[in-house]
Amino acid sequence: MNVSSDRRPIAVFDSGLGGLTVVRALRQRLPHEDIVYFGDTARVPYGSKTRETVLRFSRETCTFLQHMRPKCIVAACNTVSAICLSELESEMPVPVFGVVRPGARAAVEHGQTPDLIAVIATEATVASNAYQAAIHALDASRPVVQMACPLFVHLVEEGFSEHDPIVELAIERYLRSIVRLSPSSVVLGCTHYPMLRDALSAYLGDGVRLIDSGSCTAETVELRLKAMGALSSAETSGSLHFYVSDHPKRFQTIGSRFLGEPVLDVVRIRPEELSAVAPTIDPSLTRASA
Amino acid sequence: MNVSSDRRPIAVFDSGLGGLTVVRALRQRLPHEDIVYFGDTARVPYGSKTRETVLRFSRETCTFLQHMRPKCIVAACNTVSAICLSELESEMPVPVFGVVRPGARAAVEHGQTPDLIAVIATEATVASNAYQAAIHALDASRPVVQMACPLFVHLVEEGFSEHDPIVELAIERYLRSIVRLSPSSVVLGCTHYPMLRDALSAYLGDGVRLIDSGSCTAETVELRLKAMGALSSAETSGSLHFYVSDHPKRFQTIGSRFLGEPVLDVVRIRPEELSAVAPTIDPSLTRASA
Repeated sequence: MNVSSDRRPIAVFDSGLGGLTVVRALRQRLPHEDIVYFGDTARVPYGSKTRETVLRFSRETCTFLQHMRPKCIVAACNTVSAICLSELESEMPVPVFGVVRPGARAAVEHGQTPDLIAVIATEATVASNAYQAAIHALDASRPVVQMACPLFVHLVEEGFSEHDPIVELAIERYLRSIVRLSPSSVVLGCTHYPMLRDALSAYLGDGVRLIDSGSCTAETVELRLKAMGALSSAETSGSLHFYVSDHPKRFQTIGSRFLGEPVLDVVRIRPEELSAVAPTIDPSLTRASA
Repeated sequence: MNVSSDRRPIAVFDSGLGGLTVVRALRQRLPHEDIVYFGDTARVPYGSKTRETVLRFSRETCTFLQHMRPKCIVAACNTVSAICLSELESEMPVPVFGVVRPGARAAVEHGQTPDLIAVIATEATVASNAYQAAIHALDASRPVVQMACPLFVHLVEEGFSEHDPIVELAIERYLRSIVRLSPSSVVLGCTHYPMLRDALSAYLGDGVRLIDSGSCTAETVELRLKAMGALSSAETSGSLHFYVSDHPKRFQTIGSRFLGEPVLDVVRIRPEELSAVAPTIDPSLTRASA
């Protein structure tokens, strides 16, 4: 048993549901850690918004999450990680993890020059060039190609199965120019995309490795918490608490698919309450499960 | 020439781009009227949000639009019209028009019992039952069937052509159960849907009349302004001014397709400034055309 034990929760946030794939990866790797999650479902999606707007929303969210006294914050959203992570890192009193650098590292570790790395992501993430920059910071000679696939988020959020012909057609549309280039790996640069993993893999073929930034991030979080002596020594399963800015019931229903386990309890907190010194959370009024 | 002349603008708002199809219809019918438009692009879409959230956002928008001293306000968004129009009507000092009642009226006027009216719309509009209620208020014996088509908004916003195979597949998916019922008319219960008009019409066949709520609303606005003696007597083309809560450049680029004419000038106003007594609008800093 570990002598030091840090029972503070890990805070995770995303524009909506996508970050739950990161929570799933964290649960697999760190099953004893408590996790609090915030999904900004009143203002989703972030991927088509400007940097300034995404930064403002993220700051409000981090202010809220600070009330949970977390040991660290995970920006489980590629758009946030790509365009404003450094601001959040410098402003928050606890470590802030993004999903871009871990994903970039995993891509670089798989294969070598001149193997091509392809990154598929939202418009904002692609426009930010964050993955390319993170990959080149590790290996400046690795060729990178990026492709925005904006429809994927909507297909996943609207509950389309990855085996739906509409999804297959969308995959073919976005990836046909990528597949011709025979990349060694394709980075899933959006936390929704793991929900399409099997269909993407079937289209790209066995020779292409899919890099799930979420699970790479969970590994990074584990290593860092271990180095900090900040892992929990609890022997029971960690708790999960979910907060959303709108539509807790919808989050609960669709979220279970993302999380891979039931989303039992979702509390609503309005966007304008996020920055309040002491946000009003009245579970009895706002729980989706009530 | 009309003796009375009301040069105040018509204010129009929507969650994003869709309302521009209503502006297009207003321009055709009332070419001399000045129009100010607000698109809440920082918080789009509304169709998957709760009533409470949509009402709050709409109130903030109407507070902002009041600074333009409009002669009337058009909620060019079916979700807003369906779930919170009565609140806005009672709170605003000028007439507020929605798109649901005009669309329902046009549907009832076409055909008769037992002809079926089909309504296609967002999740929130369908869940509100607003079209069915508005149709039954006019003719309680008309059968109505409703279908939520959530992907349509995303396909249009992401710039997919209505002749794209993905769009055709989505139309077939949502409407195949509708087409079997041989409706006499299909109400386009979302202001994005007129962008898919030709493809919907091709799928549904010549025997089905498509009701565009936007153009029905323009007719209602014209009749009401005429009755109020509030039409403009200007002989020149009316001006157009656009405000959005995020991403003016994107609005400008995609918006021109919706409007059917160039979107020349778009000013950004942040969501938190909407409710300010005197919002800060600095065109030199925020114009997309700059």
